[in-house]
Amino acid sequence: MLKITIYNEGVHEKLDHRAGEIYPKGIHGQLKSALEDEFEIKVFTLETVEGITDEVLADTDVLLWWGHIRHAQVPDEVAARVRDAVHGGMGAIFLHSGHHSKPFKLLMGTSCNLTWREDGDYELVWNIKPGHPITRGIGRFIKLDHEETYGEPFAIPEPDELIFIGSYEGGEVFRAGCTYRRENGKIFYFQPGHETYPTFYNEDVIKVIKNAINWAYSPYREKIGCPNVKKPLEE
Amino acid sequence: MLKITIYNEGVHEKLDHRAGEIYPKGIHGQLKSALEDEFEIKVFTLETVEGITDEVLADTDVLLWWGHIRHAQVPDEVAARVRDAVHGGMGAIFLHSGHHSKPFKLLMGTSCNLTWREDGDYELVWNIKPGHPITRGIGRFIKLDHEETYGEPFAIPEPDELIFIGSYEGGEVFRAGCTYRRENGKIFYFQPGHETYPTFYNEDVIKVIKNAINWAYSPYREKIGCPNVKKPLEE
Amino acid sequence: MLKITIYNEGVHEKLDHRAGEIYPKGIHGQLKSALEDEFEIKVFTLETVEGITDEVLADTDVLLWWGHIRHAQVPDEVAARVRDAVHGGMGAIFLHSGHHSKPFKLLMGTSCNLTWREDGDYELVWNIKPGHPITRGIGRFIKLDHEETYGEPFAIPEPDELIFIGSYEGGEVFRAGCTYRRENGKIFYFQPGHETYPTFYNEDVIKVIKNAINWAYSPYREKIGCPNVKKPLEE
Amino acid sequence: MLKITIYNEGVHEKLDHRAGEIYPKGIHGQLKSALEDEFEIKVFTLETVEGITDEVLADTDVLLWWGHIRHAQVPDEVAARVRDAVHGGMGAIFLHSGHHSKPFKLLMGTSCNLTWREDGDYELVWNIKPGHPITRGIGRFIKLDHEETYGEPFAIPEPDELIFIGSYEGGEVFRAGCTYRRENGKIFYFQPGHETYPTFYNEDVIKVIKNAINWAYSPYREKIGCPNVKKPLEE
Repeated sequence: MLKITIYNEGVHEKLDHRAGEIYPKGIHGQLKSALEDEFEIKVFTLETVEGITDEVLADTDVLLWWGHIRHAQVPDEVAARVRDAVHGGMGAIFLHSGHHSKPFKLLMGTSCNLTWREDGDYELVWNIKPGHPITRGIGRFIKLDHEETYGEPFAIPEPDELIFIGSYEGGEVFRAGCTYRRENGKIFYFQPGHETYPTFYNEDVIKVIKNAINWAYSPYREKIGCPNVKKPLEE
Repeated sequence: MLKITIYNEGVHEKLDHRAGEIYPKGIHGQLKSALEDEFEIKVFTLETVEGITDEVLADTDVLLWWGHIRHAQVPDEVAARVRDAVHGGMGAIFLHSGHHSKPFKLLMGTSCNLTWREDGDYELVWNIKPGHPITRGIGRFIKLDHEETYGEPFAIPEPDELIFIGSYEGGEVFRAGCTYRRENGKIFYFQPGHETYPTFYNEDVIKVIKNAINWAYSPYREKIGCPNVKKPLEE
Repeated sequence: MLKITIYNEGVHEKLDHRAGEIYPKGIHGQLKSALEDEFEIKVFTLETVEGITDEVLADTDVLLWWGHIRHAQVPDEVAARVRDAVHGGMGAIFLHSGHHSKPFKLLMGTSCNLTWREDGDYELVWNIKPGHPITRGIGRFIKLDHEETYGEPFAIPEPDELIFIGSYEGGEVFRAGCTYRRENGKIFYFQPGHETYPTFYNEDVIKVIKNAINWAYSPYREKIGCPNVKKPLEE
Repeated sequence: MLKITIYNEGVHEKLDHRAGEIYPKGIHGQLKSALEDEFEIKVFTLETVEGITDEVLADTDVLLWWGHIRHAQVPDEVAARVRDAVHGGMGAIFLHSGHHSKPFKLLMGTSCNLTWREDGDYELVWNIKPGHPITRGIGRFIKLDHEETYGEPFAIPEPDELIFIGSYEGGEVFRAGCTYRRENGKIFYFQPGHETYPTFYNEDVIKVIKNAINWAYSPYREKIGCPNVKKPLEE
C-alpha cells in the first residue's frame, strides 16, 4: 500500500458553517475516508503542520495538499522541506486553492495567480488526455454542480502535460489538471475542491486523485547532488 | 514588408450561399484585404494549389492555410513541399478547419481529430498568455457571437505554448491557439474562422493573425541536413 | 507478460560480414534472446514486414523498430499502420538508425536528420534523468567501447523529456534518449545500436530497453475520433 | 537601445590573481565593454547589490547575472525582486555559476545542482538549434580552449528549448544553453564563463549573449494578478 500524507489547513471547516456542514470531519477527514481503502494515510492540519518533518516526508510516497486562508502560517521551513522531498522523488498533489500554497509556489517558481469568482457556477472538467493514467476511468468530462470559478491567466509554467481544462457556467476556462516533473518528483495540480461544495464526495474527483497518486509515486528516492567529480574514464 | 502566401480552398464560398454572402471575394479575399496594409500578399485557392511550388514557398515568409471539404484534393506533393519549407524556416499559420489539412497533419504527426458541433454558439477565446507576442493588444478574451464549436480531445502533440483556450456557449473547451517549432520553422494553429460566420472581419482575430505572422517569421532559411562529417577538431 | 513485436530490417547481417559475425541470428535474434525472459516476443524482418498487420499491432503492447539501408522498402501502408497504432496507445521504441524510419518520421513530423561519422569512437551515454523509470538501475553513464557517432543538430521536435545525452571520443554530442507522447501512445528513441558493434549485448543497453518497454506500455487502447457531438449538458 | 543591467559578484577578481589578471575591471567590466556598443548598460556588484531596486528593475529590459562564491550574501529581498520583475516581463540571462544564484533557483523551483570539475578541459559548445534567434551567426559549435567542466545531471526543469549542449575533453556533457518562460518573462541560462578563463573575450560567446538579450526582451511589462472578477459577459 502506498503511503499518503494529507495536509489540510482545516480552518474553513471551523469558521464557515457551510464548510463545516459539508465536511464535519474536515476536508482531510473526507479525503482520508475516500482513500483509505487503497492507501495508508497520515493526516496533518495547520495545527500540526510542524509535524511534517523530513522523517515523515521520507516515509511518504505521495503528499496531498489543501490550503487557503492560512497559507502564510505554514512555516517556511515546512514548505522548503516539502519542496526538497519532491526534488528527491516524493510525489505531490496540490488541490484547488493549494495553487497559492508556499510549497507549490516554490516548486513552480511563479506567482500561481489566477482570476476567480464565487457564484456557485457549475463546472465541466474536460478530459483532454483520454489515454493518460490520471484519466483512467473518466469520461469526456466531469460535471460539478457548483464550484468556485477559477479563470485564466493562471500564472504557472507551461505544464509538462495538460490533463484537464475546466469550463464554468459563466464562460471562464481554467487549466484544471496539470502535471510537472521537478527533479525526481512528479507533481499534479487539480483545481476542483472548494470548501463550500461537496466536491470531494464526487466519485470521479476521487478517482482522479487515486489515479494521480499512483501516477505520482516513484520508487526512486534520492536527491540530485552537486559533487566534485573525477574525469569519467578515470573513475 | 513580410511576404505572406494565403492558401484558401475557396469552395464553401461557391457552394454555400451563407459563406458566399459573408465572403463574396472568398475567405482569401477578406484575409488579403485585412492584411495587405502591412504585408505583401500572394493568394492561392484549390484551383491554383499546384502553383504553391518550392520557388513560391522559398519566397514566402509566412504561409496562411484555410481548408476544409477538399483537403483530400490538395496533392501530396504540395503538402510535402509545405512541410519541408516549414522545416527550413518558413512560418506557417493554420486556421480553423486547417487542423485537418495535409500539411498540418504531416507536421504534427497526429490525426488532429477533435469533437465538433455546428449550433452557432458564441465563443469566448481566452487569452492565457498576456505577455506573448501573439496576444499583443488583445484583452482577457475575444468574444465571437457565433462560431462552430470545436471540442476536446484535440489530437495534437502537447503545444510548445498554449496561447488561447476557447469556451463555447454549450460548455465545451478547446485549445484554440497553439504554437509549435518544427526544425527551423514556427507554426501557429488558431481555431476561429468558420466559413458561415464573419470571423475574419473581427478586428481582434485579424490582430492575432498579424501578431502571429510577425512572431512566425524567421530570417533564417536553411534545412537541417544529414551530412557525413569529420571529427570536429580535425575540420 | 507484455507482448513485444520486434521489427529488424535484417539486411546488414547478410551483406556485411562484421554485422553477420556479431549478430549471427540477426539483431532481432539477439534482442529476442535478451528480452524473452520477461516479454512475449514476435519478430518481423524486411522479408516479412507486410505481416505487421493491424491485427498484429492490436495484439502488440510495445513495438521495437530497427532499420537502416532499406527504410524505403517498408511499404507506406505498414508505416501508416504503425503510426495509427501508436496514436491508439501502442508503445514504440525506435533504435539507432530507426531515426530515419518511415514510422518514426511520420510520428515526429520532421526529417529526423543528424550528422554522423563512422570511426569506431567510444561513446558515453549520460543519464540525465536519474529518477526516471527508463533509467532505473543505470549509473551516471553507460560506456560503449565503439559506436557510430551521431551528432547534432538532430532534427526532431523538442522531446517531452530528454533522458540521455551521448558524447563521443571525437567530441560530438547527441540527444541519445528522448521521450514523446503522440495521442495515446508513448514513444522512446534510443540511439545506441550500430550493426557492426555488439551494443545489444551490453547489459545496460538491454536494461534501458526493458525499462523503456515497461514505461511505454499502456493498458488503454483506443483512437481519438472526430465525432459530431451533442451539447454536453443535453447528452 | 535596450537597457541592460549587469550584476557581477566581483569577488573572485579580487581574491584570485588568475581571475584578476584576466578580468582587471571585473567580469562586469568586460561584459560592459563587449556590450556597450549596442546596449545601454548599468552595472552592480555584490558591494552595490542592494541598489538593484524595483525602480532599477522596472527600468531594465534584460538583466545579466554572474555570481558564485557569495550567492548567500545576496539579500533574499533582492532575489525576490528579480524573480518578480521576470514574472512581469523583464528578460534575464544567468551566466555560468549563476545556476546556483538565488534568483535563478527561485525561478526554476529546483536545486539547479550539477556535477563539476576544474581541470581546464576544452569545451565544445554545440549549437543544436541552428535556426533559433539565440544562435544567429553561430556555427556548428563554439570551441573554448579551457572551461570549468559542468556535468549532468543538471537539476533543472525540462527547458522550454534546449539551445546548446556542451561536451568536455574528459567526456562529460551539459545542457549549456536553456530557455524558459516564467509568466511574462523570458530566461536564458548559458553555461560558459568560468572566472579563471577568458571566456567573455570570446567573440562567439559575446554574440550569443547579444542574441539572447534581443531574444529575451519584451515590450510588455505587467504582472499577472489575482483579481476577483465579474462574469465575463456581464463586465
